[in-house]
Amino acid sequence: MEASKQVNLAIYRTTIRIGASRFRQVSWYFVNILFFKNPLVVLSSAKRALLRLFGAKVGAGVVIKPSVNIKFPWKLRIGDHSWIGEGVWIDNLSDVVIGNHVALSQGCLLLTGSHDHRKETFDFLTAPITLEDGVWICARATVLGGTTCRSHSILTANSVSGGDLDPYTIYKGNPATAIKTRTIL
Amino acid sequence: MEASKQVNLAIYRTTIRIGASRFRQVSWYFVNILFFKNPLVVLSSAKRALLRLFGAKVGAGVVIKPSVNIKFPWKLRIGDHSWIGEGVWIDNLSDVVIGNHVALSQGCLLLTGSHDHRKETFDFLTAPITLEDGVWICARATVLGGTTCRSHSILTANSVSGGDLDPYTIYKGNPATAIKTRTIL
Amino acid sequence: MEASKQVNLAIYRTTIRIGASRFRQVSWYFVNILFFKNPLVVLSSAKRALLRLFGAKVGAGVVIKPSVNIKFPWKLRIGDHSWIGEGVWIDNLSDVVIGNHVALSQGCLLLTGSHDHRKETFDFLTAPITLEDGVWICARATVLGGTTCRSHSILTANSVSGGDLDPYTIYKGNPATAIKTRTIL
Repeated sequence: MEASKQVNLAIYRTTIRIGASRFRQVSWYFVNILFFKNPLVVLSSAKRALLRLFGAKVGAGVVIKPSVNIKFPWKLRIGDHSWIGEGVWIDNLSDVVIGNHVALSQGCLLLTGSHDHRKETFDFLTAPITLEDGVWICARATVLGGTTCRSHSILTANSVSGGDLDPYTIYKGNPATAIKTRTIL
Repeated sequence: MEASKQVNLAIYRTTIRIGASRFRQVSWYFVNILFFKNPLVVLSSAKRALLRLFGAKVGAGVVIKPSVNIKFPWKLRIGDHSWIGEGVWIDNLSDVVIGNHVALSQGCLLLTGSHDHRKETFDFLTAPITLEDGVWICARATVLGGTTCRSHSILTANSVSGGDLDPYTIYKGNPATAIKTRTIL
Repeated sequence: MEASKQVNLAIYRTTIRIGASRFRQVSWYFVNILFFKNPLVVLSSAKRALLRLFGAKVGAGVVIKPSVNIKFPWKLRIGDHSWIGEGVWIDNLSDVVIGNHVALSQGCLLLTGSHDHRKETFDFLTAPITLEDGVWICARATVLGGTTCRSHSILTANSVSGGDLDPYTIYKGNPATAIKTRTIL
Protein backbone atom coordinates (compact mmCIF):
# COMPACT_ATOMS: atom_id res chain seq x y z
CA MET A 1 0.00 0.00 0.00
CA GLU A 2 1.43 3.35 -1.01
CA ALA A 3 1.70 6.19 1.46
CA SER A 4 -1.65 7.88 2.04
CA LYS A 5 -2.10 11.34 0.63
CA GLN A 6 -2.72 14.24 2.97
CA VAL A 7 -4.88 17.33 2.92
CA ASN A 8 -3.16 20.68 2.61
CA LEU A 9 -5.26 23.51 3.97
CA ALA A 10 -2.49 25.99 3.13
CA ILE A 11 -3.52 25.81 -0.54
CA TYR A 12 -7.26 25.96 0.20
CA ARG A 13 -9.05 28.70 -1.69
CA THR A 14 -12.62 29.42 -0.73
CA THR A 15 -15.02 29.24 -3.65
CA ILE A 16 -18.10 30.52 -1.85
CA ARG A 17 -20.22 32.56 -4.24
CA ILE A 18 -21.40 35.34 -2.00
CA GLY A 19 -24.01 36.60 -4.44
CA ALA A 20 -24.11 40.14 -3.09
CA SER A 21 -21.99 43.27 -3.13
CA ARG A 22 -19.31 43.70 -0.52
CA PHE A 23 -21.36 46.59 0.87
CA ARG A 24 -24.47 44.47 1.27
CA GLN A 25 -22.52 41.63 2.80
CA VAL A 26 -20.81 43.81 5.41
CA SER A 27 -24.05 45.68 6.19
CA TRP A 28 -25.89 42.41 6.74
CA TYR A 29 -23.10 41.20 8.97
CA PHE A 30 -23.85 44.02 11.42
CA VAL A 31 -27.63 43.88 11.02
CA ASN A 32 -27.50 40.15 11.77
CA ILE A 33 -25.53 40.72 14.98
CA LEU A 34 -27.61 43.71 16.11
CA PHE A 35 -31.14 42.54 15.33
CA PHE A 36 -31.08 38.78 14.78
CA LYS A 37 -28.35 37.18 16.93
CA ASN A 38 -29.26 39.60 19.72
CA PRO A 39 -31.06 37.87 22.61
CA LEU A 40 -33.36 40.88 22.97
CA VAL A 41 -36.79 40.62 21.40
CA VAL A 42 -37.18 42.52 18.13
CA LEU A 43 -40.60 42.59 16.46
CA SER A 44 -40.97 39.90 13.80
CA SER A 45 -42.42 42.51 11.47
CA ALA A 46 -39.20 44.54 11.71
CA LYS A 47 -37.09 41.45 11.10
CA ARG A 48 -39.18 40.47 8.09
CA ALA A 49 -38.68 43.97 6.67
CA LEU A 50 -34.93 43.79 7.26
CA LEU A 51 -34.67 40.39 5.61
CA ARG A 52 -36.59 41.66 2.57
CA LEU A 53 -34.41 44.78 2.41
CA PHE A 54 -31.41 42.48 2.09
CA GLY A 55 -32.97 40.39 -0.65
CA ALA A 56 -34.82 37.59 1.15
CA LYS A 57 -38.29 36.57 0.01
CA VAL A 58 -40.35 36.39 3.21
CA GLY A 59 -44.08 35.64 3.29
CA ALA A 60 -46.83 36.90 5.55
CA GLY A 61 -46.91 36.15 9.26
CA VAL A 62 -43.43 34.68 9.52
CA VAL A 63 -42.31 34.64 13.17
CA ILE A 64 -38.62 35.07 14.01
CA LYS A 65 -37.49 34.56 17.61
CA PRO A 66 -34.33 36.00 19.23
CA SER A 67 -30.74 34.74 18.88
CA VAL A 68 -31.19 33.68 15.25
CA ASN A 69 -28.16 33.57 12.94
CA ILE A 70 -28.71 33.93 9.18
CA LYS A 71 -25.76 33.90 6.81
CA PHE A 72 -26.98 35.37 3.51
CA PRO A 73 -30.59 36.67 3.42
CA TRP A 74 -30.38 37.06 -0.38
CA LYS A 75 -30.19 33.26 -0.52
CA LEU A 76 -33.24 32.74 1.70
CA ARG A 77 -36.85 32.20 0.72
CA ILE A 78 -39.58 31.64 3.35
CA GLY A 79 -43.29 31.13 2.63
CA ASP A 80 -46.24 32.26 4.75
CA HIS A 81 -46.74 31.62 8.48
CA SER A 82 -43.48 29.78 9.07
CA TRP A 83 -41.56 30.01 12.34
CA ILE A 84 -37.85 30.50 13.01
CA GLY A 85 -37.27 29.49 16.65
CA GLU A 86 -34.86 30.82 19.26
CA GLY A 87 -31.23 30.09 18.53
CA VAL A 88 -31.82 28.76 15.01
CA TRP A 89 -28.79 28.92 12.71
CA ILE A 90 -29.47 29.17 8.98
CA ASP A 91 -25.96 28.80 7.54
CA ASN A 92 -27.11 29.30 3.96
CA LEU A 93 -24.09 29.54 1.72
CA SER A 94 -26.44 28.01 -0.86
CA ASP A 95 -30.14 28.69 -1.27
CA VAL A 96 -32.44 27.72 1.57
CA VAL A 97 -36.06 27.50 0.50
CA ILE A 98 -38.63 27.19 3.29
CA GLY A 99 -42.28 26.63 2.42
CA ASN A 100 -45.49 27.64 4.21
CA HIS A 101 -46.35 26.61 7.79
CA VAL A 102 -42.86 25.29 8.45
CA ALA A 103 -41.64 25.18 12.08
CA LEU A 104 -37.94 25.42 12.92
CA SER A 105 -37.63 24.75 16.66
CA GLN A 106 -35.01 26.02 19.11
CA GLY A 107 -31.39 25.62 18.17
CA CYS A 108 -31.84 23.75 14.92
CA LEU A 109 -29.20 24.12 12.21
CA LEU A 110 -29.57 24.29 8.43
CA LEU A 111 -26.04 23.54 7.24
CA THR A 112 -25.46 24.01 3.52
CA GLY A 113 -21.66 24.00 3.52
CA SER A 114 -19.25 21.09 3.53
CA HIS A 115 -15.88 20.02 2.13
CA ASP A 116 -14.66 17.38 -0.29
CA HIS A 117 -12.72 15.12 2.05
CA ARG A 118 -11.36 13.13 -0.88
CA LYS A 119 -9.39 16.09 -2.20
CA GLU A 120 -5.98 17.20 -1.00
CA THR A 121 -7.35 20.74 -1.39
CA PHE A 122 -10.39 20.01 0.86
CA ASP A 123 -12.56 21.79 -1.73
CA PHE A 124 -15.50 23.77 -0.47
CA LEU A 125 -18.84 22.13 -1.27
CA THR A 126 -22.29 23.52 -0.83
CA ALA A 127 -25.79 22.43 -1.74
CA PRO A 128 -29.25 23.93 -1.22
CA ILE A 129 -31.81 22.86 1.38
CA THR A 130 -35.54 22.73 0.71
CA LEU A 131 -38.16 22.42 3.44
CA GLU A 132 -41.59 21.91 1.91
CA ASP A 133 -44.91 23.01 3.44
CA GLY A 134 -45.74 21.86 6.95
CA VAL A 135 -42.26 20.50 7.75
CA TRP A 136 -41.13 20.51 11.39
CA ILE A 137 -37.41 20.57 12.22
CA CYS A 138 -37.35 19.93 15.98
CA ALA A 139 -35.03 21.40 18.58
CA ARG A 140 -31.30 21.15 17.85
CA ALA A 141 -31.80 18.98 14.77
CA THR A 142 -29.36 19.42 11.86
CA VAL A 143 -30.32 19.42 8.18
CA LEU A 144 -27.35 18.86 5.87
CA GLY A 145 -26.85 20.51 2.46
CA GLY A 146 -28.54 18.82 -0.45
CA THR A 147 -31.50 17.70 1.63
CA THR A 148 -35.14 18.07 0.65
CA CYS A 149 -37.59 17.59 3.50
CA ARG A 150 -40.83 16.73 1.73
CA SER A 151 -44.24 18.02 2.75
CA HIS A 152 -45.04 17.62 6.46
CA SER A 153 -42.00 15.49 7.27
CA ILE A 154 -40.52 15.79 10.78
CA LEU A 155 -36.89 15.62 11.89
CA THR A 156 -36.95 14.94 15.65
CA ALA A 157 -34.86 16.67 18.33
CA ASN A 158 -31.09 16.55 17.86
CA SER A 159 -31.38 14.25 14.82
CA VAL A 160 -29.25 14.71 11.68
CA SER A 161 -30.75 14.29 8.22
CA GLY A 162 -29.24 11.41 6.28
CA GLY A 163 -30.84 12.04 2.89
CA ASP A 164 -34.20 13.38 1.77
CA LEU A 165 -37.19 13.03 4.10
CA ASP A 166 -40.32 11.44 2.69
CA PRO A 167 -43.60 13.33 3.03
CA TYR A 168 -45.64 12.85 6.21
CA THR A 169 -42.88 10.78 7.78
CA ILE A 170 -41.07 11.18 11.12
CA TYR A 171 -37.29 10.67 11.27
CA LYS A 172 -34.97 10.13 14.24
CA GLY A 173 -31.28 9.50 14.88
CA ASN A 174 -27.90 10.24 13.35
CA PRO A 175 -28.27 9.50 10.50
CA ALA A 176 -32.03 9.95 10.88
CA THR A 177 -34.17 7.03 9.79
CA ALA A 178 -37.95 6.87 9.33
CA ILE A 179 -39.64 5.77 12.54
CA LYS A 180 -43.31 6.58 12.00
CA THR A 181 -45.92 8.02 9.68
CA ARG A 182 -47.34 11.45 10.45
CA THR A 183 -51.09 11.46 10.21
CA ILE A 184 -52.97 14.72 10.57
CA LEU A 185 -56.48 14.02 11.80
CA MET B 1 -56.30 7.33 -0.29
CA GLU B 2 -57.76 10.75 0.37
CA ALA B 3 -55.64 13.88 0.15
CA SER B 4 -53.51 14.36 3.25
CA LYS B 5 -54.46 17.14 5.61
CA GLN B 6 -52.07 19.99 6.21
CA VAL B 7 -51.03 22.05 9.21
CA ASN B 8 -52.08 25.67 9.31
CA LEU B 9 -49.85 27.77 11.52
CA ALA B 10 -51.89 30.88 10.66
CA ILE B 11 -54.61 29.67 13.05
CA TYR B 12 -52.18 28.62 15.77
CA ARG B 13 -52.95 30.15 19.14
CA THR B 14 -50.40 29.71 21.89
CA THR B 15 -51.81 28.16 25.03
CA ILE B 16 -48.76 28.56 27.23
CA ARG B 17 -49.82 29.24 30.81
CA ILE B 18 -47.26 31.77 31.87
CA GLY B 19 -48.14 31.55 35.54
CA ALA B 20 -46.89 35.02 36.46
CA SER B 21 -47.91 38.62 36.02
CA ARG B 22 -46.86 40.45 32.90
CA PHE B 23 -44.64 42.61 35.08
CA ARG B 24 -42.84 39.64 36.58
CA GLN B 25 -42.44 38.01 33.18
CA VAL B 26 -40.92 41.07 31.54
CA SER B 27 -38.68 41.78 34.54
CA TRP B 28 -37.37 38.23 34.47
CA TYR B 29 -36.73 38.51 30.75
CA PHE B 30 -34.20 41.27 31.40
CA VAL B 31 -32.76 39.72 34.57
CA ASN B 32 -32.21 36.48 32.65
CA ILE B 33 -30.32 38.30 29.88
CA LEU B 34 -28.30 40.49 32.24
CA PHE B 35 -27.33 38.02 34.97
CA PHE B 36 -27.89 34.49 33.64
CA LYS B 37 -27.30 34.40 29.87
CA ASN B 38 -24.40 36.79 30.34
CA PRO B 39 -21.01 35.08 29.83
CA LEU B 40 -19.58 37.10 32.72
CA VAL B 41 -19.31 35.35 36.06
CA VAL B 42 -21.99 36.35 38.57
CA LEU B 43 -21.83 34.90 42.09
CA SER B 44 -24.03 31.82 42.46
CA SER B 45 -25.36 33.25 45.72
CA ALA B 46 -26.65 36.31 43.84
CA LYS B 47 -28.21 34.11 41.17
CA ARG B 48 -29.88 31.94 43.78
CA ALA B 49 -31.31 35.07 45.42
CA LEU B 50 -32.60 36.36 42.07
CA LEU B 51 -34.22 33.04 41.23
CA ARG B 52 -35.95 32.97 44.62
CA LEU B 53 -37.08 36.57 44.18
CA PHE B 54 -38.82 35.46 40.98
CA GLY B 55 -40.50 32.50 42.62
CA ALA B 56 -38.08 29.60 42.19
CA LYS B 57 -37.44 27.22 45.07
CA VAL B 58 -33.66 26.90 45.24
CA GLY B 59 -31.82 24.90 47.89
CA ALA B 60 -28.51 25.48 49.62
CA GLY B 61 -25.24 25.44 47.75
CA VAL B 62 -26.69 25.38 44.25
CA VAL B 63 -24.00 26.38 41.72
CA ILE B 64 -25.01 28.25 38.56
CA LYS B 65 -22.39 28.85 35.87
CA PRO B 66 -22.45 31.60 33.20
CA SER B 67 -24.49 31.67 29.96
CA VAL B 68 -27.47 29.85 31.47
CA ASN B 69 -30.94 30.42 30.02
CA ILE B 70 -33.98 29.88 32.27
CA LYS B 71 -37.48 30.49 30.93
CA PHE B 72 -39.78 30.81 33.96
CA PRO B 73 -38.11 30.70 37.43
CA TRP B 74 -41.54 30.43 39.07
CA LYS B 75 -41.81 26.98 37.47
CA LEU B 76 -38.42 25.83 38.73
CA ARG B 77 -37.55 23.86 41.86
CA ILE B 78 -33.95 22.87 42.66
CA GLY B 79 -32.82 20.94 45.75
CA ASP B 80 -29.55 21.29 47.63
CA HIS B 81 -26.05 21.20 46.15
CA SER B 82 -27.11 20.79 42.52
CA TRP B 83 -25.14 22.28 39.63
CA ILE B 84 -26.31 24.17 36.56
CA GLY B 85 -23.40 24.12 34.07
CA GLU B 86 -22.24 26.66 31.52
CA GLY B 87 -24.60 27.16 28.63
CA VAL B 88 -27.44 25.08 30.12
CA TRP B 89 -30.91 25.90 28.76
CA ILE B 90 -33.87 25.22 31.06
CA ASP B 91 -36.79 25.87 28.72
CA ASN B 92 -39.39 25.28 31.43
CA LEU B 93 -42.80 26.16 30.09
CA SER B 94 -43.96 23.45 32.51
CA ASP B 95 -42.55 22.68 35.93
CA VAL B 96 -38.98 21.49 36.13
CA VAL B 97 -38.19 19.79 39.43
CA ILE B 98 -34.51 19.11 40.13
CA GLY B 99 -33.54 17.13 43.23
CA ASN B 100 -30.45 17.22 45.42
CA HIS B 101 -26.90 16.63 44.14
CA VAL B 102 -28.00 16.77 40.50
CA ALA B 103 -25.40 17.77 37.89
CA LEU B 104 -26.41 19.45 34.63
CA SER B 105 -23.28 19.64 32.47
CA GLN B 106 -22.35 22.19 29.78
CA GLY B 107 -24.90 22.95 27.13
CA CYS B 108 -27.57 20.47 28.18
CA LEU B 109 -31.21 21.27 27.41
CA LEU B 110 -34.36 20.60 29.44
CA LEU B 111 -37.09 20.96 26.81
CA THR B 112 -40.62 20.92 28.18
CA GLY B 113 -42.43 22.28 25.12
CA SER B 114 -43.60 20.47 22.01
CA HIS B 115 -46.46 20.45 19.49
CA ASP B 116 -49.21 18.02 18.53
CA HIS B 117 -48.09 17.07 15.02
CA ARG B 118 -51.36 15.20 14.42
CA LYS B 119 -53.42 18.36 14.60
CA GLU B 120 -53.95 20.82 11.79
CA THR B 121 -53.59 23.50 14.47
CA PHE B 122 -50.19 22.15 15.63
CA ASP B 123 -51.39 22.55 19.23
CA PHE B 124 -48.89 23.54 21.84
CA LEU B 125 -48.01 20.71 24.23
CA THR B 126 -45.96 20.83 27.36
CA ALA B 127 -45.12 18.43 30.14
CA PRO B 128 -42.98 18.65 33.28
CA ILE B 129 -39.50 17.23 33.77
CA THR B 130 -38.31 15.65 37.00
CA LEU B 131 -34.68 14.93 37.79
CA GLU B 132 -34.38 12.96 41.01
CA ASP B 133 -31.45 13.06 43.44
CA GLY B 134 -27.99 12.35 42.09
CA VAL B 135 -28.96 12.48 38.41
CA TRP B 136 -26.29 13.54 35.90
CA ILE B 137 -27.33 15.07 32.59
CA CYS B 138 -24.06 15.19 30.62
CA ALA B 139 -22.85 17.84 28.19
CA ARG B 140 -25.27 18.82 25.43
CA ALA B 141 -27.78 16.09 26.30
CA THR B 142 -31.49 16.84 25.80
CA VAL B 143 -34.28 15.84 28.20
CA LEU B 144 -37.73 15.95 26.60
CA GLY B 145 -40.95 17.03 28.36
CA GLY B 146 -42.73 14.36 30.35
CA THR B 147 -39.49 12.65 31.34
CA THR B 148 -38.62 11.51 34.84
CA CYS B 149 -34.95 10.72 35.36
CA ARG B 150 -34.96 8.45 38.40
CA SER B 151 -32.44 8.60 41.21
CA HIS B 152 -28.79 8.62 40.07
CA SER B 153 -29.57 7.89 36.41
CA ILE B 154 -27.18 9.33 33.79
CA LEU B 155 -27.92 10.66 30.32
CA THR B 156 -24.59 10.70 28.43
CA ALA B 157 -23.22 13.51 26.28
CA ASN B 158 -25.43 14.68 23.39
CA SER B 159 -27.99 11.93 24.05
CA VAL B 160 -31.76 12.52 23.91
CA SER B 161 -34.10 10.97 26.46
CA GLY B 162 -36.57 8.52 24.96
CA GLY B 163 -38.77 7.91 27.99
CA ASP B 164 -38.13 7.75 31.72
CA LEU B 165 -34.68 6.79 32.94
CA ASP B 166 -34.43 3.95 35.46
CA PRO B 167 -32.55 4.57 38.69
CA TYR B 168 -28.80 3.97 38.75
CA THR B 169 -28.75 3.35 35.01
CA ILE B 170 -26.67 4.97 32.24
CA TYR B 171 -28.33 5.89 28.93
CA LYS B 172 -26.85 6.75 25.55
CA GLY B 173 -28.03 7.62 22.03
CA ASN B 174 -31.00 9.22 20.30
CA PRO B 175 -33.32 7.90 21.55
CA ALA B 176 -31.21 7.03 24.57
CA THR B 177 -31.16 3.39 25.61
CA ALA B 178 -29.78 1.81 28.78
CA ILE B 179 -26.15 0.79 28.28
CA LYS B 180 -24.90 0.13 31.81
CA THR B 181 -25.66 0.10 35.50
CA ARG B 182 -24.27 2.88 37.66
CA THR B 183 -22.68 1.50 40.78
CA ILE B 184 -21.44 3.88 43.45
CA LEU B 185 -18.67 2.21 45.43
CA MET C 1 -29.52 -5.99 48.00
CA GLU C 2 -28.20 -3.27 50.25
CA ALA C 3 -29.35 0.30 49.88
CA SER C 4 -27.64 2.04 46.97
CA LYS C 5 -25.08 4.67 47.79
CA GLN C 6 -25.62 8.24 46.77
CA VAL C 7 -23.47 11.03 45.43
CA ASN C 8 -22.84 13.99 47.66
CA LEU C 9 -21.91 17.12 45.75
CA ALA C 10 -21.68 19.08 49.00
CA ILE C 11 -18.32 17.43 49.67
CA TYR C 12 -17.08 17.82 46.10
CA ARG C 13 -13.73 19.56 45.83
CA THR C 14 -12.53 20.58 42.41
CA THR C 15 -9.11 19.21 41.53
CA ILE C 16 -8.62 21.08 38.27
CA ARG C 17 -4.98 21.99 37.83
CA ILE C 18 -5.23 25.40 36.30
CA GLY C 19 -1.56 25.56 35.32
CA ALA C 20 -1.34 29.35 35.28
CA SER C 21 -1.20 32.23 37.73
CA ARG C 22 -4.43 33.68 39.01
CA PHE C 23 -3.57 36.86 37.12
CA ARG C 24 -3.13 35.06 33.83
CA GLN C 25 -6.30 33.08 34.35
CA VAL C 26 -8.44 36.14 35.08
CA SER C 27 -6.87 38.12 32.24
CA TRP C 28 -7.60 35.33 29.79
CA TYR C 29 -11.16 35.13 31.04
CA PHE C 30 -11.78 38.69 29.81
CA VAL C 31 -9.69 38.36 26.64
CA ASN C 32 -11.68 35.24 25.75
CA ILE C 33 -14.99 37.06 26.16
CA LEU C 34 -13.86 40.21 24.38
CA PHE C 35 -11.96 38.80 21.42
CA PHE C 36 -12.89 35.13 21.04
CA LYS C 37 -16.49 34.56 22.20
CA ASN C 38 -17.42 37.88 20.60
CA PRO C 39 -19.50 37.43 17.43
CA LEU C 40 -17.61 40.30 15.80
CA VAL C 41 -14.82 39.38 13.44
CA VAL C 42 -11.33 39.82 14.87
CA LEU C 43 -8.32 39.18 12.61
CA SER C 44 -6.99 35.64 12.99
CA SER C 45 -3.48 37.09 13.19
CA ALA C 46 -4.50 39.08 16.28
CA LYS C 47 -6.11 36.03 17.85
CA ARG C 48 -3.05 33.92 17.16
CA ALA C 49 -0.90 36.57 18.84
CA LEU C 50 -3.22 36.69 21.85
CA LEU C 51 -3.22 32.91 22.20
CA ARG C 52 0.59 32.85 22.08
CA LEU C 53 0.78 35.67 24.62
CA PHE C 54 -1.21 33.46 26.99
CA GLY C 55 1.00 30.44 26.44
CA ALA C 56 -0.57 28.57 23.53
CA LYS C 57 1.62 27.13 20.79
CA VAL C 58 -0.02 28.22 17.55
CA GLY C 59 1.42 27.51 14.10
CA ALA C 60 1.37 29.54 10.90
CA GLY C 61 -1.83 30.32 9.06
CA VAL C 62 -4.23 29.12 11.76
CA VAL C 63 -7.70 30.55 11.11
CA ILE C 64 -9.99 31.33 14.07
CA LYS C 65 -13.60 32.32 13.38
CA PRO C 66 -15.90 34.34 15.70
CA SER C 67 -17.77 33.07 18.81
CA VAL C 68 -15.03 30.64 19.82
CA ASN C 69 -14.65 29.65 23.48
CA ILE C 70 -11.24 28.50 24.70
CA LYS C 71 -10.73 27.55 28.35
CA PHE C 72 -6.99 27.57 28.98
CA PRO C 73 -4.74 28.69 26.09
CA TRP C 74 -1.66 27.53 28.00
CA LYS C 75 -2.97 23.98 27.56
CA LEU C 76 -3.50 24.36 23.79
CA ARG C 77 -1.18 23.44 20.95
CA ILE C 78 -2.19 23.94 17.31
CA GLY C 79 -0.03 23.14 14.26
CA ASP C 80 0.06 24.97 10.94
CA HIS C 81 -2.91 25.87 8.75
CA SER C 82 -5.59 24.45 11.01
CA TRP C 83 -9.05 25.99 11.31
CA ILE C 84 -11.19 26.76 14.36
CA GLY C 85 -14.74 27.29 13.08
CA GLU C 86 -17.52 29.57 14.31
CA GLY C 87 -18.93 28.66 17.69
CA VAL C 88 -16.30 26.03 18.48
CA TRP C 89 -15.83 25.29 22.20
CA ILE C 90 -12.40 24.04 23.27
CA ASP C 91 -13.06 23.15 26.92
CA ASN C 92 -9.45 22.18 27.57
CA LEU C 93 -9.00 21.54 31.26
CA SER C 94 -6.36 19.07 30.05
CA ASP C 95 -4.02 19.49 27.09
CA VAL C 96 -5.57 19.71 23.66
CA VAL C 97 -3.07 19.04 20.91
CA ILE C 98 -4.19 19.84 17.36
CA GLY C 99 -1.94 18.94 14.44
CA ASN C 100 -1.50 20.53 11.01
CA HIS C 101 -4.32 21.01 8.50
CA VAL C 102 -6.99 20.10 11.01
CA ALA C 103 -10.52 21.47 10.48
CA LEU C 104 -12.88 22.05 13.41
CA SER C 105 -16.27 22.95 11.92
CA GLN C 106 -19.04 25.12 13.37
CA GLY C 107 -20.15 24.43 16.89
CA CYS C 108 -18.00 21.40 17.60
CA LEU C 109 -16.94 20.70 21.18
CA LEU C 110 -13.66 19.33 22.55
CA LEU C 111 -14.65 18.21 26.04
CA THR C 112 -11.77 17.16 28.26
CA GLY C 113 -13.58 17.19 31.61
CA SER C 114 -15.78 14.56 33.20
CA HIS C 115 -16.63 13.06 36.58
CA ASP C 116 -16.20 9.68 38.24
CA HIS C 117 -19.82 8.57 38.52
CA ARG C 118 -18.83 5.57 40.66
CA LYS C 119 -17.66 7.80 43.48
CA GLU C 120 -19.84 9.34 46.15
CA THR C 121 -17.60 12.41 45.75
CA PHE C 122 -18.24 12.60 41.97
CA ASP C 123 -14.49 13.17 41.51
CA PHE C 124 -13.39 15.47 38.75
CA LEU C 125 -11.74 13.62 35.86
CA THR C 126 -9.96 15.02 32.88
CA ALA C 127 -7.94 13.61 30.01
CA PRO C 128 -6.19 15.16 27.01
CA ILE C 129 -7.44 15.19 23.43
CA THR C 130 -5.18 14.75 20.41
CA LEU C 131 -6.23 15.53 16.87
CA GLU C 132 -3.55 14.42 14.41
CA ASP C 133 -2.81 16.01 11.02
CA GLY C 134 -5.65 16.34 8.54
CA VAL C 135 -8.42 15.44 10.99
CA TRP C 136 -11.87 16.91 10.39
CA ILE C 137 -14.29 17.34 13.30
CA CYS C 138 -17.56 18.25 11.58
CA ALA C 139 -20.25 20.68 12.74
CA ARG C 140 -21.52 20.20 16.31
CA ALA C 141 -19.59 16.98 16.84
CA THR C 142 -18.26 16.24 20.34
CA VAL C 143 -14.83 14.77 21.12
CA LEU C 144 -14.59 13.35 24.64
CA GLY C 145 -11.50 13.52 26.87
CA GLY C 146 -8.96 10.79 26.38
CA THR C 147 -9.64 10.56 22.65
CA THR C 148 -6.98 10.47 19.95
CA CYS C 149 -8.26 11.13 16.46
CA ARG C 150 -5.61 9.61 14.22
CA SER C 151 -4.33 11.14 11.01
CA HIS C 152 -7.09 12.27 8.60
CA SER C 153 -9.93 10.67 10.53
CA ILE C 154 -13.35 12.35 10.35
CA LEU C 155 -16.06 12.69 13.01
CA THR C 156 -19.29 13.57 11.18
CA ALA C 157 -21.81 16.24 12.16
CA ASN C 158 -23.28 15.99 15.67
CA SER C 159 -21.51 12.67 16.34
CA VAL C 160 -19.84 11.85 19.67
CA SER C 161 -16.49 10.06 19.80
CA GLY C 162 -16.67 6.67 21.47
CA GLY C 163 -12.97 5.87 21.65
CA ASP C 164 -9.99 6.61 19.42
CA LEU C 165 -10.57 7.20 15.72
CA ASP C 166 -8.51 5.14 13.29
CA PRO C 167 -6.55 6.97 10.60
CA TYR C 168 -8.28 7.78 7.33
CA THR C 169 -11.61 6.54 8.68
CA ILE C 170 -15.00 8.25 8.89
CA TYR C 171 -17.13 7.91 12.03
CA LYS C 172 -20.79 8.61 12.68
CA GLY C 173 -23.32 8.34 15.53
CA ASN C 174 -23.41 8.43 19.32
CA PRO C 175 -21.22 6.62 20.09
CA ALA C 176 -19.58 7.14 16.72
CA THR C 177 -18.72 4.00 14.77
CA ALA C 178 -16.61 3.62 11.64
CA ILE C 179 -18.78 3.90 8.52
CA LYS C 180 -16.30 4.37 5.70
CA THR C 181 -12.68 4.74 4.68
CA ARG C 182 -11.40 8.18 3.72
CA THR C 183 -9.43 8.03 0.51
CA ILE C 184 -7.66 11.15 -0.71
CA LEU C 185 -7.22 10.94 -4.49
